[in-house]
Amino acid sequence: MKKKKIKQTSELEDLGFAKIDHHRVKRKGFAEVIFCPGKTNNQIAAIFKKLAKKKNTVIATRATPENFKAVAKAFRKAVYHKEARIISLINLKQFPNSKSKKTKRMICVITAGTADIPVAEEAAVTTELLGNTTDRIYDVGVAGIHRLFNKLDRISQASVIIVIAGMEGALASVVAGLVQVPVIAVPTSIGYGASFKGLSALLTMMNSCAPGVAVVNIDNGFGAGVMAHTILGGK
Amino acid sequence: MKKKKIKQTSELEDLGFAKIDHHRVKRKGFAEVIFCPGKTNNQIAAIFKKLAKKKNTVIATRATPENFKAVAKAFRKAVYHKEARIISLINLKQFPNSKSKKTKRMICVITAGTADIPVAEEAAVTTELLGNTTDRIYDVGVAGIHRLFNKLDRISQASVIIVIAGMEGALASVVAGLVQVPVIAVPTSIGYGASFKGLSALLTMMNSCAPGVAVVNIDNGFGAGVMAHTILGGK
Amino acid sequence: MKKKKIKQTSELEDLGFAKIDHHRVKRKGFAEVIFCPGKTNNQIAAIFKKLAKKKNTVIATRATPENFKAVAKAFRKAVYHKEARIISLINLKQFPNSKSKKTKRMICVITAGTADIPVAEEAAVTTELLGNTTDRIYDVGVAGIHRLFNKLDRISQASVIIVIAGMEGALASVVAGLVQVPVIAVPTSIGYGASFKGLSALLTMMNSCAPGVAVVNIDNGFGAGVMAHTILGGK
Amino acid sequence: MKKKKIKQTSELEDLGFAKIDHHRVKRKGFAEVIFCPGKTNNQIAAIFKKLAKKKNTVIATRATPENFKAVAKAFRKAVYHKEARIISLINLKQFPNSKSKKTKRMICVITAGTADIPVAEEAAVTTELLGNTTDRIYDVGVAGIHRLFNKLDRISQASVIIVIAGMEGALASVVAGLVQVPVIAVPTSIGYGASFKGLSALLTMMNSCAPGVAVVNIDNGFGAGVMAHTILGGK
Amino acid sequence: MKKKKIKQTSELEDLGFAKIDHHRVKRKGFAEVIFCPGKTNNQIAAIFKKLAKKKNTVIATRATPENFKAVAKAFRKAVYHKEARIISLINLKQFPNSKSKKTKRMICVITAGTADIPVAEEAAVTTELLGNTTDRIYDVGVAGIHRLFNKLDRISQASVIIVIAGMEGALASVVAGLVQVPVIAVPTSIGYGASFKGLSALLTMMNSCAPGVAVVNIDNGFGAGVMAHTILGGK
Amino acid sequence: MKKKKIKQTSELEDLGFAKIDHHRVKRKGFAEVIFCPGKTNNQIAAIFKKLAKKKNTVIATRATPENFKAVAKAFRKAVYHKEARIISLINLKQFPNSKSKKTKRMICVITAGTADIPVAEEAAVTTELLGNTTDRIYDVGVAGIHRLFNKLDRISQASVIIVIAGMEGALASVVAGLVQVPVIAVPTSIGYGASFKGLSALLTMMNSCAPGVAVVNIDNGFGAGVMAHTILGGK
Amino acid sequence: MKKKKIKQTSELEDLGFAKIDHHRVKRKGFAEVIFCPGKTNNQIAAIFKKLAKKKNTVIATRATPENFKAVAKAFRKAVYHKEARIISLINLKQFPNSKSKKTKRMICVITAGTADIPVAEEAAVTTELLGNTTDRIYDVGVAGIHRLFNKLDRISQASVIIVIAGMEGALASVVAGLVQVPVIAVPTSIGYGASFKGLSALLTMMNSCAPGVAVVNIDNGFGAGVMAHTILGGK
Amino acid sequence: MKKKKIKQTSELEDLGFAKIDHHRVKRKGFAEVIFCPGKTNNQIAAIFKKLAKKKNTVIATRATPENFKAVAKAFRKAVYHKEARIISLINLKQFPNSKSKKTKRMICVITAGTADIPVAEEAAVTTELLGNTTDRIYDVGVAGIHRLFNKLDRISQASVIIVIAGMEGALASVVAGLVQVPVIAVPTSIGYGASFKGLSALLTMMNSCAPGVAVVNIDNGFGAGVMAHTILGGK
Repeated sequence: MKKKKIKQTSELEDLGFAKIDHHRVKRKGFAEVIFCPGKTNNQIAAIFKKLAKKKNTVIATRATPENFKAVAKAFRKAVYHKEARIISLINLKQFPNSKSKKTKRMICVITAGTADIPVAEEAAVTTELLGNTTDRIYDVGVAGIHRLFNKLDRISQASVIIVIAGMEGALASVVAGLVQVPVIAVPTSIGYGASFKGLSALLTMMNSCAPGVAVVNIDNGFGAGVMAHTILGGK
Repeated sequence: MKKKKIKQTSELEDLGFAKIDHHRVKRKGFAEVIFCPGKTNNQIAAIFKKLAKKKNTVIATRATPENFKAVAKAFRKAVYHKEARIISLINLKQFPNSKSKKTKRMICVITAGTADIPVAEEAAVTTELLGNTTDRIYDVGVAGIHRLFNKLDRISQASVIIVIAGMEGALASVVAGLVQVPVIAVPTSIGYGASFKGLSALLTMMNSCAPGVAVVNIDNGFGAGVMAHTILGGK
Repeated sequence: MKKKKIKQTSELEDLGFAKIDHHRVKRKGFAEVIFCPGKTNNQIAAIFKKLAKKKNTVIATRATPENFKAVAKAFRKAVYHKEARIISLINLKQFPNSKSKKTKRMICVITAGTADIPVAEEAAVTTELLGNTTDRIYDVGVAGIHRLFNKLDRISQASVIIVIAGMEGALASVVAGLVQVPVIAVPTSIGYGASFKGLSALLTMMNSCAPGVAVVNIDNGFGAGVMAHTILGGK
Repeated sequence: MKKKKIKQTSELEDLGFAKIDHHRVKRKGFAEVIFCPGKTNNQIAAIFKKLAKKKNTVIATRATPENFKAVAKAFRKAVYHKEARIISLINLKQFPNSKSKKTKRMICVITAGTADIPVAEEAAVTTELLGNTTDRIYDVGVAGIHRLFNKLDRISQASVIIVIAGMEGALASVVAGLVQVPVIAVPTSIGYGASFKGLSALLTMMNSCAPGVAVVNIDNGFGAGVMAHTILGGK
Repeated sequence: MKKKKIKQTSELEDLGFAKIDHHRVKRKGFAEVIFCPGKTNNQIAAIFKKLAKKKNTVIATRATPENFKAVAKAFRKAVYHKEARIISLINLKQFPNSKSKKTKRMICVITAGTADIPVAEEAAVTTELLGNTTDRIYDVGVAGIHRLFNKLDRISQASVIIVIAGMEGALASVVAGLVQVPVIAVPTSIGYGASFKGLSALLTMMNSCAPGVAVVNIDNGFGAGVMAHTILGGK
Repeated sequence: MKKKKIKQTSELEDLGFAKIDHHRVKRKGFAEVIFCPGKTNNQIAAIFKKLAKKKNTVIATRATPENFKAVAKAFRKAVYHKEARIISLINLKQFPNSKSKKTKRMICVITAGTADIPVAEEAAVTTELLGNTTDRIYDVGVAGIHRLFNKLDRISQASVIIVIAGMEGALASVVAGLVQVPVIAVPTSIGYGASFKGLSALLTMMNSCAPGVAVVNIDNGFGAGVMAHTILGGK
Repeated sequence: MKKKKIKQTSELEDLGFAKIDHHRVKRKGFAEVIFCPGKTNNQIAAIFKKLAKKKNTVIATRATPENFKAVAKAFRKAVYHKEARIISLINLKQFPNSKSKKTKRMICVITAGTADIPVAEEAAVTTELLGNTTDRIYDVGVAGIHRLFNKLDRISQASVIIVIAGMEGALASVVAGLVQVPVIAVPTSIGYGASFKGLSALLTMMNSCAPGVAVVNIDNGFGAGVMAHTILGGK
Repeated sequence: MKKKKIKQTSELEDLGFAKIDHHRVKRKGFAEVIFCPGKTNNQIAAIFKKLAKKKNTVIATRATPENFKAVAKAFRKAVYHKEARIISLINLKQFPNSKSKKTKRMICVITAGTADIPVAEEAAVTTELLGNTTDRIYDVGVAGIHRLFNKLDRISQASVIIVIAGMEGALASVVAGLVQVPVIAVPTSIGYGASFKGLSALLTMMNSCAPGVAVVNIDNGFGAGVMAHTILGGK
């Protein structure tokens, strides 16, 4: 985790509808990420091109298959992670020694239920694209807590844990009570009735009685992935 | 659990400010209970007197020490359960065979934290005054879940379980995932920040992913106690 | 209601996207239930197969006709309860003496309006699949309260009552004031304007002034059915 | 109920901190009413004086005993309605024939509980000061609904009914389902936990499934009283 | 406004999915009204038939054109009020002298904007079907308040006023400040952003500083119409 | 309204607990203002001293009489505006030609009720201390709208209007519908029941159907004053 | 900014479904604007015609391409601003000297992200149609704040600034802290999870710690445009 | 950051009202922390004693001066951190080499305003008691953003940053946009009006458009401190 002086450089590229922040890769350790919703296929492809030209690993989140088609025309090596709804184009130079690192520090991605998996995949793929190793443990919610205890050996190998849960979102507290490493809690909009589209799980996680938990936005797998990556020291 | 024909008898006693429902003891299996807040000492004492005259066990909830003094003048055998904030006057004839029942069917009252104890006491004392046996297991919240597992032997003896928790209220789901008997969940207003005076715990419990849980109002230990008693068959 | 020692056995079957909890039938008295939304037809059919192999009665809730088609290919005896949106495959060995029990202990399912019926059917079918007898009394809301009083004889036969109401949800309090047995209140999302998708009915039921009421999630007929079953002693 | 042309006359008296609307007695049928909170004793006394000078019946709501002392110095005939928290000074000329009317048209004020009485008194005293007859029926909430049916004869005499209830506020729907006259529902802030200071009762009443109900603000006994008076034809 | 003894007669007709309350016409002064959403065409037609057989004026609200087609097959005289989304079948015997009454007591229906008209039509048609006269004044919201003042002559003829407004809902207070008759306020879900589907207008109307206002549910034109009719003395 | 290049100068003075932003007077046209709540008397006096030394007009808002005493020891010319809860120390050099400007451009401060006056005074005194002229028109809410029309001549002289209202907050829309100049709406926490401490008025104002309105925070008279001042061109 | 006496003239044109307020152009400085949602193509075209006849610049907001087609049949010079969803028909006589003014006073429209652009265009086009000059600076949100600082020269030229942001809406505070001119903040419904359709951004902007900010409704670009125009002195 | 196998050891000490979790120091890297509110002085002192006996560094949060007196009687070396409201008793053996570590990895604690300092102190003292080095940068909120840029050199030295802000809470996004290390955001209840006791800041921070931010509960300085400590690798 080397410190760098923060400079207010301004390496912007102005596409009119967007100002691409090429400086971000220096400031944050990875290039700007394209959030697809609300952008046209053409806009996504244009921004993708500009970012790829700078030899960055390019990531586009919440991408539809149509978004991918638009990108894939220009970039045959672009990959569509269907469940995670992510388009990626990897530039190995960016994370040259990620292999060796992978064996050492691992991010565990845990879900309470099956329906939480898309958010989990967004988190897991994000962390992997940023050069990290992940371990996925899905469907181990508190209704049958022995499913969780069954996996404690794998969980205890993690350097950071991402816990993803909808409905009552209780899993984050339980996990955080058992481990020594940081837990990032992601409430999901899974549930019905009084789950109020994730509000219930969000409040549960904010009020966790177990220390060592912090929360990101509802369904924000990407945010959790970046936070986990950042905790492990970024680049 | 004998069924009775429900009759619309009307054994009311009218004190002006209150209509005492003497028929309730037949209809519900126990006499009307005095909810003290918003009533003067004189009003409480007057209602107490009317209920005692009918040879009922009299219960007054959310009672202050001042409320108790007003009652104790007339009823030297009245008892003040300080932590539960309950005044009681027991009439043993009402539940003659409660002793024998006590050994068979037990209500377990569990709290997540120390600060939840007053609500738990309200629940436990209520069930005991209605003739039930209780087992109190306090401060076993999910931040250190082995504290709960440590008590599984005792918990597995219960016929009904009352789980009382504030903050994220996750304990109800965990317990309900482990047992075969009904779980009554009581959210408490304990917590700070985004607990919003019990709303967070209430939503958590409403959204429980474990089956066999139902919820009563925030801090409503009395309601949980009556529900548990009712489940065990009332009188 | 026999007590069993709770053991932390771990009879899990891992399908990758789901960890089937075969131990649940021992712990909770019935097998894991498949919540269909968010699962593909293939996933539902796969889980169904694994559960059926263990000779459990299999239940899938919130199932679409398409979900049913996928299941029916493999299980010709599977039944689709259309209004309740439940797929079931009964294994009579699981509840061998349910017949005799049926005559003794009955669950009454009451709705305030016609539009609450799908939730009521989910509750009623659930309890029946778990081996209980039910009595359905629909459309007796408080706008014409004599409709309710008209049915008091039938209601007074119940050992547990499930009250299902949307809009202002007042029926639960009225019923609980009349009976001696536990009332499980289910708010529904029926209503418009300030009903806020069931929030109004939920708050009404949480604040019930009548003792002996506990609440499950909005539209959660399944949860109410399991709670009623659990109260009657499970298996 | 005579119609009058509405004129935009401007009979204002300007006290600096308040503009007294002397025209209101012509426009609305009764003089401006003093809402005491947030006004000093001197301000209240000053406005009281200006209104009394015009030979109106003067009404001050939410008045403290201290407010009353300030007024009573100047007006020995002023009356303090303690439970209703209202100061009044009656000018009989204003409603000369209220006597005869009293026997004909009656406003029934019903509460669910004892704690709702202060709001009920505010409503009842207001209607009486405006020249109407009232019948008070207190503590007949739905937890023991036979208490209500016991009073149906008196209730059926009313021309307008005011129903006042906190907690789940279900009483308004039940009453409106039984009568032919307009029901004004007043939610109160009585209750605890998830009553959220009257929000629960307000939503219940807004969503009433019974026709012929309209709602005023939480704890707004005065507003309900004026609405009832207005329905009966004002002056 | 004749008083009648309220009897708990029970003239119910049970269709299984609905219990038709034929007694309501005696108790409330008009027959049960069919709320169409959530009912099938067949169910609507069946209930319609049962009600028509009793020689009541039949009203079905929130009806789609498809609902109407189903009804019109059996009842050629049924009318579809398109903007109000109401199906009606008038039985003139029910309100024999409504003609003469029409000239005397009028209900004024006022909207703030053009988009509020469907709710206003639901209110107006309801009152007319119940035998009242109405005057419609649309699009006179407070953004150009002279539009309202322009109509004061007509407004001052009303015996009851229904004010319908979305967005900030301020019109109800302004009207109530000008008139002597009861104002029924109907918040609508018209608006965007922070109008939160009518919540903003609802709160505005609940907090009206002008006396003589009571509020019904969001978009509830029917409820407002019945309330106005009830205020005018029902039948 | 001269434009200035915005420079990122950093004229900070660091008191440890506060970083005084002396550059603000250049950037914003007036010096930093002291928000008293949560600061000790000593802290307030210390910051006051630092700001006064720079020859600025010093303003402290939400000041208690105790806060004033602490300041007055050191600054005998400091003034306490009691109703506005503001301490001020005027430096006339800062706004040398405010006199002449006063005759030209006027800010009208209007309240709906008497209880809104403290917020209005905070707004009015703030604008005056920044060198503007104000006209106060209090207690002209929509319950008696002729009170407002009575003042239209004075209102039409204003260059900016601040409208302050609690309860339903309808006044802002009405005023904005009548004038050509910008209206700044300030919701207040005045009201009870469903006013929810200003939320009702805030939503009303946000949803204003009249163009030319923008809203500041609940009870934020200071913010409204500064906004009005800024609209008039700052210094 | 000349003051005019406000007269209560009533130049209304009544189309039944709408009352066109031709006086508004005198009172507010621009003609009534057509809000399209909830109006039919015919209604929009009819109102458009009436307004155009009066030689006003006609503006219709939230217009669909279908709405435009209906208008364009009659008005070949009508223009559809696609991204802003505005139909306009300019009448140059209305703002004869707007050219000269344009060089002097400029409105800067800033967005945090690309997805906020439609709201920004609504604001920008509105102000331009009312005769103002704008400068658009898009996609300069706080995640890369140097993008904002990069544009400070252009921003400092503005006489009024409109800041448009969704998600956390922090940009308004940052901008207001840097400039001397009024900032109008527009929260947008852009964001996901806990942005709650703009509520998060709205609250952020209401609570701005920087003085000189006022807020309009979520996504209300039109309202922001009119407010900016009004601040610059209207006509 | 060494991994340890998680064992379900059960080193509990049962005080009746509390179950002390001595195993936590092994599982989480530090001993149980005493949350004082809702506990009596005697209870706090008793738990303090039990924890101290195990040679742990003992920490009690939200402690009043009275709580401290009770503890100080038995532990003369206990320290009261007044602004942070923390009682501590350091056991240097627990973190023997914290000195050397201090020079390498630093936690920066930043506040937006002066009023946020108590929460910041709770965070800073917590991290220091756990053996970390902190740098406090207070009162650099976005209203004067150059105050923040002025400190970028110090901020860029941090390995983890805690950002504490009330009101609109925008500072977290701005900081996260500038740095490469994890940002823990703490909303505070500072603010008024529509800040709704921290809800506004909480939502702002949850919706941060800058990656690398996660949020803890309102005013939860302790939680932020532990999270920062955990990120740095715990012990």
